Parts: sequence; structure tokens; C-alpha cells
Amino acid sequence: MTSDTAVRRDRLRAQLADLAVDVALVTNLVNVRYLTGFTGSNAAVLVSADGADVFCTDGRYRTQAAAQVPDLERVIERHCAAALAGRLSAEGVEGIGYESHEVSVDGLADLVTVLAGGQLRSLQRAVEGLRTIKDEGEIALLRQACAIADRALADLIAAGGVCAGRSELEVGRDLDGRMLDHGAEERSFETIVASGPNSAIPHHRPTGRVLERGDFVKFDFGAAHGGYHSDMTRTVVLGEPAGWQREIYDLVHAAQRAGCAAAVVDADVRAVDAAARDLITAAGYGEQFGHGLGHGVGLEIHEAPTVSHLGAGRLADRMPVTVEPGVYLEGRGGVRIEDTLVVRAEGPELLTMTGKELVVL
Amino acid sequence: MTSDTAVRRDRLRAQLADLAVDVALVTNLVNVRYLTGFTGSNAAVLVSADGADVFCTDGRYRTQAAAQVPDLERVIERHCAAALAGRLSAEGVEGIGYESHEVSVDGLADLVTVLAGGQLRSLQRAVEGLRTIKDEGEIALLRQACAIADRALADLIAAGGVCAGRSELEVGRDLDGRMLDHGAEERSFETIVASGPNSAIPHHRPTGRVLERGDFVKFDFGAAHGGYHSDMTRTVVLGEPAGWQREIYDLVHAAQRAGCAAAVVDADVRAVDAAARDLITAAGYGEQFGHGLGHGVGLEIHEAPTVSHLGAGRLADRMPVTVEPGVYLEGRGGVRIEDTLVVRAEGPELLTMTGKELVVL
Repeated sequence: MTSDTAVRRDRLRAQLADLAVDVALVTNLVNVRYLTGFTGSNAAVLVSADGADVFCTDGRYRTQAAAQVPDLERVIERHCAAALAGRLSAEGVEGIGYESHEVSVDGLADLVTVLAGGQLRSLQRAVEGLRTIKDEGEIALLRQACAIADRALADLIAAGGVCAGRSELEVGRDLDGRMLDHGAEERSFETIVASGPNSAIPHHRPTGRVLERGDFVKFDFGAAHGGYHSDMTRTVVLGEPAGWQREIYDLVHAAQRAGCAAAVVDADVRAVDAAARDLITAAGYGEQFGHGLGHGVGLEIHEAPTVSHLGAGRLADRMPVTVEPGVYLEGRGGVRIEDTLVVRAEGPELLTMTGKELVVL
Repeated sequence: MTSDTAVRRDRLRAQLADLAVDVALVTNLVNVRYLTGFTGSNAAVLVSADGADVFCTDGRYRTQAAAQVPDLERVIERHCAAALAGRLSAEGVEGIGYESHEVSVDGLADLVTVLAGGQLRSLQRAVEGLRTIKDEGEIALLRQACAIADRALADLIAAGGVCAGRSELEVGRDLDGRMLDHGAEERSFETIVASGPNSAIPHHRPTGRVLERGDFVKFDFGAAHGGYHSDMTRTVVLGEPAGWQREIYDLVHAAQRAGCAAAVVDADVRAVDAAARDLITAAGYGEQFGHGLGHGVGLEIHEAPTVSHLGAGRLADRMPVTVEPGVYLEGRGGVRIEDTLVVRAEGPELLTMTGKELVVL
């Protein structure tokens, strides 16, 4: 049986001719993980048109590499990119693709020194492009990561953990602990708990502010599972909502539904953004929605595609993306509602299952 | 009163002539934080020979930048490096220093497009060089970060949290929680709890392995406070130590003392490494100590200088470094003992205060 990582390397291999290179020297660690399964902190991989792929890491990871990358020739060297470039130079390989968006200027100079003869060309984010479309194994990991976050939030609310008198920091730690309890490897990112006026700050860091009756409380959080990241935002209200709270909640909720419905195969990312944004703009809150609608998610919490009026390109089958409109009223409060979903030929598959009706606590 | 960050910018400014540039365009976010105090996720700063420094971030951080960087002219633009380069181009500035070890090849191409006229030269890690020597404010933050870690470990042990029957993961979460209880912003890095045979793996990730009587248990962990990171390793034993355990513990302990004593002003980093390593080699365990002796620590958990036989340069007054020898016997167990200390004219100032006699639990 061909492994998932071998299939991914073959997909990259199929692009080498278009990129006008004979081999890809991949050094970005997330891309190396994607192509090989290796999770250590120092590695590189060569993916070659002739099929003779080579992996490199240093001596600390000899045993781990043998377990995680059993199907590739393994070189053990401290300076992985230079070691693999040295092989190419010795073999007289001419056209070498490298990750010009990741390799530093000094790093390129090091490669040029080793590669006396070869020609270096940019891989033009080819691996990031491949990564936008997930295989079913990746989607299963994302689904589990999202389920962990769903369960953690449900537990937190059921335990009465979101209440007046607790600080944002306390509530955040409680939520984080529940994600670990449910098997998260770690948090996807620093959990946002933003209460009252702080909920109007799109990326607020939790503080000692104590939750009060009448507050919006916005949670933006996720769990990592098998290296894949969930991402979800929910906003609840403590006590009976005021008119303005109900108004912007319902607006964001409607916009979020519209954004999800628009996330279909072949949709232009700008059109998906517009499906949600137009509702918010029409209601007079366009200026209060100052960020894009969403982003791809996978081995990184933010990855391609950018689902935004500033983005470009079209959605495709098996692309996981977030849909996360918000309205933020400075000094008063804000609402964001975010799901992670998978674009599918048969329509979006929702991965974050927590309900989106306004929860009054 | 001149702020700490203004003093730091002046120190960089004083190096511009030697670097043959009129202005430094600093884009590495840790370096930007060091020079300005700004903690957001998108920013750049110009430090100019003529003293007209300029800061840039995007609209999400307008309020935060006004609070954190009140003393600099602030530009609000999404693409910070390009925006600042555009100003330099408009002003006809010729010699522009940039961070060639951080800027990607594509990033440099973007700068070249904007800077039709100017000459770009490498800053040669000038800011990283400045950062090796801390001011007393930075050292005070490190001292507090180390105290948080000390207290957390003491609490964990006093509470009976390190005992047979608990898993590495449980013990690690317990220790992490205690660091947060004592005011850590976050962990310095993923806490290592390595028990029994796992203690022979220098950078083991905690697993579900349950601690057993007779185990070495190695803790490598730290707390972040005010952006500064503590780093400490201690190894304890569960139950009366076997002869081999006592032997390698005493050896590593002696090597660690020798390394600390050698960490004085003007010491060559290779000599500091050798002071500890020679003892371990003489005892026949040289092959079982496969990593460097230590590293600088501050806004990043690993920063210059590298205290190692592979390093270069000399220690200086007010340089915080770690001293962390180890001996690892594959399949049996290992010991590492690590302190964070500050090199001082009057001798090393120890920041991690937890005792280093073998603790038997």
C-alpha cells in the first residue's frame, strides 16, 4: 500500500516539470512533516523527478526518523539543507527548486556556496498549494481536533465555568485544561477569552478582568490533534441580552450562515467573503468587521487559502476553511462566530458542531 | 528619563557606521520588541543614524502601539517592511541595513522592488548581538521568571506530585498549572518530564508512561514572565538510588558546578564548555554527553551566545546563560542538571535557586 506521504511526494513530483526543476529541496519543517511524517525540529527532504527521494535530520533524531520515515533513504547531518545540496552538487543535478518564501537571504548564500554548478529556482509555494486540499486521513484528524474543542466548551458551560465573578484568565485555563482532558496534544493557539468591552477587541489576550452580568463573552480557541488544528469561536451572553446585543448577534449569525452556504467547490474566495460581509455592510456595520472571513487550517492554524476580499483563487473539494465573521463595537462589546468546515462536492461538511443559537448564561 | 528601549536603539545606532549603513530596517519581531517594547504579531522599525526612528504596525494594533511605543513616530500599514522601505526610497536614503538571516529571498525581492535606488547590506545579527548583554530591567524579569519555576517545582514536590503511579503527562500538567498559579504568562517551552529509561532521551516529550520506583525523573521546564524565559533542569530519583544512579548524578553535579564556576567575564565559551565536559570525559562518559553546555536566554528561550565546543566568542558582564551538562545511558536512564545564571564581574549570579543535591522521593 502506498503511504499518504508517498502520495503527497508524488503529487509534488508531478509539478516539478512545470516548475522547471529536476528536484525540490524542501526545508520548511511543516512541509517536511507533510511530505514525510517527520515531527522533529531539524530536517529537510529532497523530492526528485527520478523518484530517488532523500530525507535528512541530525543525530538526535536517528531513532525517531527510522520510525517515522522508514520508506526514505535517511542522511544524518546537522546542517540538513547543505548536506542535501552537497549530494545534488556531487551528482551534478542542474535544476534545483527551493522554498524562496522561507529560505533566508543568508540561507540562500549558503546553498549557493555548496551548489557551485546547479541552478536554483523558486518552488513558488508548491507544497503549501498541495496542502490546501486534504486527504481523508487529514480530515479525520481535523474532525477529531474539532470534536475535542466542542466537548471542552460543552463541559465548561455545563460545569457552570462561564459565570460572573471568574476572570478571563481563570475561564481560559479551565477551557484549556478540558481540551487536554479530552486528548488535545496542545492548544491550537493562545485561547482567547474576551469579556464585556474586551469582546470588541478581535484578538484580545485574556486578562484578570472579572466577568460581569450583561457581558458578551467571546471564546476563540482550538485543539491540536495528530498535528492538525481546530479553530472555533463562540460568543455567549451573561444574563438577558440587551437589544444591541441581540441585534449584532443575530446579524453575525446570519452572516456566518451565509458564509458557510457560499463555501462550495469552485467558489471564488472573494465571493465567499462577500456573501457574509454584504449582510453586515447592509446593516450598517461594515466598518465594524475589519478582518477577512476565514482561512485554511491544517498542520498550521493559519494556512492557504485566505478567504477574504484580499484573497485570490477558488475553493476546491476537501479544502478545510474557517468562516468567522464578526462585528465589534468599541468600548461596548463584540460578537464573532466561527466554524471550521470542509468544502465538499456535496456541500460543506461542518467539523465544529457546537450550536450557534445565542447562549444566555 | 530615557527609556530602556531608547537606550537599546542608541546602542544599535552607534553600530550603523561600522555596518556601513545609514539606517537599520529591523523586521524580526523579537528584535522589534527589544527595540520598541511592542508585543504584537506584525511590525517593523527603522533605526536611523540621524535619530529619526519610525515604527510601523497594522490597524489591528493602533491602540496597542500608541500605548507600547509612545516615543516613536508610528506608521499604520499592513505590509510593514515595504511601507518603511517606501519612506526610505522617497527620502533618497542610500545605505540600508536589513536582517539577512531572517528576511526570506522573496522578502528581499519585495524590498528591492520598493528601494529602486538604495543599497541593501546585511545587519549581521547586530540586534541579536546587543541582546546577549541584558540591562538590569531584563535581568529582573529573568529573575522573576526563574523564581516562578523554582516555586512551582517546590510546590509539586511538597504536594507529593512526583510519585510512582502518576504518568509523565499528569506530572507535567501539574507542574505547568503551578507555574501559571505563580504568575507565569506561559511555559517557556513544552515541559519535559522524562522518567525511567525515557530520562536517557535528552529532549523527551512527556508520554503516558507511569512513574515507577527506581526511576530517575528528569524535569526540564521554565516560565515566561514579561516576555523573558527561565530554563531549569532537575533530576530526582524515586526510592533509594542504585549505585549507577548515584555515580552519574554526582558526576553531572560536579560538572555542573565546574561549568558555573567557569562562567566568568571574558571566558571563552569553549573553555566554559570544557570545564564541565572534561570531568565527564575523564570519568568515561564523554560519549554520553552529546550536546552543548548551554545557551543564552532572554526574550527567546534559546539565543546567543552558544556555550559549546562548537561556539565562538567570550562571555561578558550581564550575559544570562544556562549551564546544563548531562549524562544519558540509553535504555537505563539519564541525568541533566541545569541552572540559569548571569555572568557578572563579581562572579556568576544564580537565578534558579532550587537545590542540586540528589532528591530521593
